[in-house]
Amino acid sequence: MSQKYSTRAEDYSKWYNETIERADLAENSGVRGCMVIKPYGYAIWEKIQAQLDKMFKETGHQNAYFPLFVPKSLFEAEEKNAEGFAKECAIVTHYRLKTDEKNPGKLIVDPEAKLEEELIVRPTSEAIIWNTYKGWIQSYRDLPILINQWANVVRWEMRTRIFLRTAEFLWQEGHTAHATKQEAYEETERMLGVYAEFAENFMAMPVIQGRKTESERFAGADDTLCIEAMMQDGKALQAGTSHFLGQNFAKAFDVKFTDSEGKLDHVWATSWGVSTRLMGALIMTHSDDEGLVLPPKLAPIQVVGVPIFKTDDEYEAIGKKFDELALKLKALGVSFKYDHDKNRRPGWKFAEYEAKGVPVRLAMGPRDMENGNIEVARRDTKTKEVVSFEGLDQHLVKLLNEIQNNLYQKALNFRTDNLHTVDTYEEFKTRLSKEGGFYLAHWDGTAETEAKIKEETQATIRCIPFEHTGEGVCMVTGKPSKQRVVISKAY
Amino acid sequence: MSQKYSTRAEDYSKWYNETIERADLAENSGVRGCMVIKPYGYAIWEKIQAQLDKMFKETGHQNAYFPLFVPKSLFEAEEKNAEGFAKECAIVTHYRLKTDEKNPGKLIVDPEAKLEEELIVRPTSEAIIWNTYKGWIQSYRDLPILINQWANVVRWEMRTRIFLRTAEFLWQEGHTAHATKQEAYEETERMLGVYAEFAENFMAMPVIQGRKTESERFAGADDTLCIEAMMQDGKALQAGTSHFLGQNFAKAFDVKFTDSEGKLDHVWATSWGVSTRLMGALIMTHSDDEGLVLPPKLAPIQVVGVPIFKTDDEYEAIGKKFDELALKLKALGVSFKYDHDKNRRPGWKFAEYEAKGVPVRLAMGPRDMENGNIEVARRDTKTKEVVSFEGLDQHLVKLLNEIQNNLYQKALNFRTDNLHTVDTYEEFKTRLSKEGGFYLAHWDGTAETEAKIKEETQATIRCIPFEHTGEGVCMVTGKPSKQRVVISKAY
Ligand SMILES: [Zn+2]
Ligand SMILES: [Zn+2]
Repeated sequence: MSQKYSTRAEDYSKWYNETIERADLAENSGVRGCMVIKPYGYAIWEKIQAQLDKMFKETGHQNAYFPLFVPKSLFEAEEKNAEGFAKECAIVTHYRLKTDEKNPGKLIVDPEAKLEEELIVRPTSEAIIWNTYKGWIQSYRDLPILINQWANVVRWEMRTRIFLRTAEFLWQEGHTAHATKQEAYEETERMLGVYAEFAENFMAMPVIQGRKTESERFAGADDTLCIEAMMQDGKALQAGTSHFLGQNFAKAFDVKFTDSEGKLDHVWATSWGVSTRLMGALIMTHSDDEGLVLPPKLAPIQVVGVPIFKTDDEYEAIGKKFDELALKLKALGVSFKYDHDKNRRPGWKFAEYEAKGVPVRLAMGPRDMENGNIEVARRDTKTKEVVSFEGLDQHLVKLLNEIQNNLYQKALNFRTDNLHTVDTYEEFKTRLSKEGGFYLAHWDGTAETEAKIKEETQATIRCIPFEHTGEGVCMVTGKPSKQRVVISKAY
Repeated sequence: MSQKYSTRAEDYSKWYNETIERADLAENSGVRGCMVIKPYGYAIWEKIQAQLDKMFKETGHQNAYFPLFVPKSLFEAEEKNAEGFAKECAIVTHYRLKTDEKNPGKLIVDPEAKLEEELIVRPTSEAIIWNTYKGWIQSYRDLPILINQWANVVRWEMRTRIFLRTAEFLWQEGHTAHATKQEAYEETERMLGVYAEFAENFMAMPVIQGRKTESERFAGADDTLCIEAMMQDGKALQAGTSHFLGQNFAKAFDVKFTDSEGKLDHVWATSWGVSTRLMGALIMTHSDDEGLVLPPKLAPIQVVGVPIFKTDDEYEAIGKKFDELALKLKALGVSFKYDHDKNRRPGWKFAEYEAKGVPVRLAMGPRDMENGNIEVARRDTKTKEVVSFEGLDQHLVKLLNEIQNNLYQKALNFRTDNLHTVDTYEEFKTRLSKEGGFYLAHWDGTAETEAKIKEETQATIRCIPFEHTGEGVCMVTGKPSKQRVVISKAY
């Protein structure tokens, strides 16, 4: 790797883009704001999907699929939701192209194929789903409905950034219907818990669980719960949201049910989602100046083997040892790749797998063979050790576990170091101008104060955390505050 | 089930729709031509996806994701492809809605948010993918590229039918790039082979492998290979296609590579796909007048257990036996559901699981308990047997295997019975007017004769089968024919 790359300290934003490029995760496409997710990036997304899908099913959810398009009349039915997304949606107006008579070989939109009603490419699916649920729900016996959808959605963002903000992105959206307010609220909390567990145990990314302020709520929700993670530049990234939708969509789409006593009422709803944004969070939580760092549980390749050889005999002999190891690792469920490519030098390979964030790299040469040893290099700490080939498989299982835990602990330590408690607005502004991180501060609960903080500092109230340590007075107005909130600049 | 349903003999089309409704697989949505795939239907699609995905990965392919939208200038680059899809595509022209000042609460398309270049919602992704591959390919070392994508696509069909023809559908599309014509052609054949294996071994659906005539080729392909299955009404259903694209897309998008001798050449391409259409094929191949019939390998629930009880004690005791069985079946990888619902009567449950196509239904009452027996009912043959509870798990594994094989054999026998060899056009027309099925007939190879057959009989040449039995003379023109082709009415 002769090319010089940016470090986090030099240019965090450039480092982020280069980390994605070096690991071959994704790229910008020929379509404004849309990305191409390349095979290695998509393999990580598949691991994320598989684990979340398992957790959704374990909590009683089933997958289904709803249309990509939302007719305008359905889109506008829930007014707040419509208002929230109206300014950023792709609109289908025609259904046919025709040949351009002035330009042979070129096509133009056929003006005669104009749709009677425009179709919105879904930015989120509440409208189309609640219009469908209307036909499914008559009685309490039809409830709860616990459905998830894996899909693409489109939000016409003006300033885009791979994984973090793209016009089209991939996500899952859960949409549930319940007979009571309490049950819906419990579902909202349960799914936030699933997201938090996934973030911490699989992404090795500590998160703060809390509630959004009214002004930051999902359009159409009565309450939005969220998990917020701290990136290495100290900014917050909202990694998942779970919305208590009250009866808003049921009322907008007239979805009522008869309860067990024969009383008619509107249905209670939740929705919750995470997206390919998680890829951005994963990258920015763990990676370093040498490239991507992946937690073993989400690494498409957990262990890579590289042979060090001069002669064909050496190549053969080392290959046999690695084949032996491969079988054992397969049985243990460890994903192993043996890079037997003769055209690439070991040094090139080392740098390549480092950039790709492979948690453990093995190297074996003729000397190691003789001694019954192998070199084991950790991506997270960049330390190497020489280990006996005997029992290597079990050693690797333990090591992967250790790396997973170490990455979490490292991220948690970073967050602890950058979680500041401030009591005055002056202190907040001064410190924020010097260092990022999350600021725990008292706030009077008004939208006015929230807006003032945002306008004057570009930092926002990320959430009202569930865990809190008591009352106080607002750092801006001095008015009473029930608890500290988390304030930070954010992605 | 007091309602009377249509039989296949009475009204095949109505029977198809009712089978979908009774099994709760899918429904039409509020969006013209788009369907909602309901949880049980989607669970079958997930089984199809999982198996195909495994087979694609075993043959060296990786998944990736490309944009939903294709800018018009890219869409029209490969002229034949563009021409083929221009008449049926959804076109995004605007990216913002605004409030309608004349109608409070309503939205209208913001005329100021018109896109400079219209975006086509992908009907297939060759254009956007080859525009991307251009940046990935310089030398033979970058080849082959073996990528698959799971995605939604949109083709604006005027007459739609759930699963068989919908405006939006789910599919996978493989897109590969190769250094030589031969390698690309081998890939085209390999993937057709994967589809045929999947159809026969998993869907239990025999298929004829062959080549499309020039007029039935994919727009932009030099050759289209396909698998054709026979439905129970004797019509053909094209269940999968694999296209040899030659250098057409490489030329349209100017994708060249340097070979090992330094010579510059255009890249060779393939693409191949199957879609949610397979769900329609699955339904129409096996189901009967009582509802859906599923091959065990694709059944979300392979075995269902129903308790027959009067007292709570009986309910408890039977439940314990089924719990015992559940553990054993889980260990054997058999998907089992125990329906412990007390509010539904056994008769209702029997009909329900019959309509849903669950391959094996178990029932156990107090008498069975005493005798150490259980009732085992097969969905495919509608036969019942009383079996000892001892060793039941192993018995079920064998039974599921037997059902899988029986369904295939039954479908194969049906196809054999309805595969007619005809030698004169008169005979063909007379028989076709009386019975469906596939007709093996000689054809002179001209588009004129093909068009004449289609116009006069509504039957089309489904394929030129790989397996053939020698030369002859065209049944229409008497001109020489190299081999018989498969002619049939089709979905
Ligand atoms: Zn939060
Ligand atoms: Zn064919």
